[in-house]
Amino acid sequence: MGTVERRERERQELRTKIVDVAREMFAAEGYEAVTMRKIAERIEYSPTAIYAHFKDKNALIRELCETDFLAFAQRFVAFLQVDDPIERLRRAGVAYVDFAVDNPQHYRLMFLTPRPSIEGEDTSGANDPGRNAYVFLRSTVADAMDRGLFRAELTDVDVVAQAIWAALHGVVALHITVCRANDQWMSWAPLEERRALMSDVVLRGLLRDPEKAEAPSPGALRLSHSRR
Amino acid sequence: MGTVERRERERQELRTKIVDVAREMFAAEGYEAVTMRKIAERIEYSPTAIYAHFKDKNALIRELCETDFLAFAQRFVAFLQVDDPIERLRRAGVAYVDFAVDNPQHYRLMFLTPRPSIEGEDTSGANDPGRNAYVFLRSTVADAMDRGLFRAELTDVDVVAQAIWAALHGVVALHITVCRANDQWMSWAPLEERRALMSDVVLRGLLRDPEKAEAPSPGALRLSHSRR
Repeated sequence: MGTVERRERERQELRTKIVDVAREMFAAEGYEAVTMRKIAERIEYSPTAIYAHFKDKNALIRELCETDFLAFAQRFVAFLQVDDPIERLRRAGVAYVDFAVDNPQHYRLMFLTPRPSIEGEDTSGANDPGRNAYVFLRSTVADAMDRGLFRAELTDVDVVAQAIWAALHGVVALHITVCRANDQWMSWAPLEERRALMSDVVLRGLLRDPEKAEAPSPGALRLSHSRR
Repeated sequence: MGTVERRERERQELRTKIVDVAREMFAAEGYEAVTMRKIAERIEYSPTAIYAHFKDKNALIRELCETDFLAFAQRFVAFLQVDDPIERLRRAGVAYVDFAVDNPQHYRLMFLTPRPSIEGEDTSGANDPGRNAYVFLRSTVADAMDRGLFRAELTDVDVVAQAIWAALHGVVALHITVCRANDQWMSWAPLEERRALMSDVVLRGLLRDPEKAEAPSPGALRLSHSRR
């Protein structure tokens, strides 16, 4: 490998390292408390080395958010292939909880930490489900409404989408923050039981025919996939 | 007022001030990042003055948690007077959201910030609904199950109680953390609509007879109260 390629690879590795360390520090201490200098100290580079990659803290936060929200949205686009919107919601719900449990620091920073407003944020992907997971959720809810699957009085797509999101957020937010082993104040049920009940309860509460909240058998699923 | 009383009042005022400032700082920066010295600097007292009240950070966190969780639990005990467990859940849900919106820093520290384990914590109130709000929630769910109001397959009191809690936690956690004015990625529905839909959807999903999820008319409520 030539010198140019090695330098570029090292440059990229340092950039990724800065972002990873910043994520960890922001998640632990909040955006306010962490300075560029503190990040430099943690990775044992000079502040100058960091400023060569990010001109200021705003630029670093912007890249961190863009990276994490893109990766998050990409988790859900595959489910657009699932024809039945209820099954799509069910599977996306499982993927959502898995994401949070597998990446508690990403999740903490994305959805549990107040974020400063970001200057120069690229919002061109705001309507693209591949870049904005809310668009995936919203379009799936709209699809279910169009097909008459939800109760007739549920007509506000955003309120329904935000209730579904809040239900899953509540499960994982309690899990990664409050739920502790040996809690003397309460006895925590296993995460999978809490997730499954929440999915079932919310779908039943939304559906015109609550029985459809039951997950179909694997055979029925395969059948519905072969339709596309 | 005599010198002794004045001194005692001033002592109590300083103690309350320390706890209030500590809550604010812990909520903003996390438990780890805040030291006794930083708290002293913020209130412009010497560290010695703070140590006269709390022998260490653990003692301060312990008092803070005891104070806040007690005040929180006290919000719900009055609802034990409501005979119908579904109505009790409905009202407690409104009170829960009100608490979070009125006291976002308390809420952030109680339920959105990882807490270190507390030495010497007094857990003697673990089974008292007046000191542990989870006992209130759990007993209300158990009451609804005993009366056959929930679907027959719902038999695990803790899983159901934790799903109800998670649903409300999700609504308020998104509200006080993520929900921002002028969000370019999504359009937030008003909090009250999100809360009301969540309450309706979760109760419908749990109830044997989903129609009972509808809030009764004020007249019907008064009637149910007069039964006690």
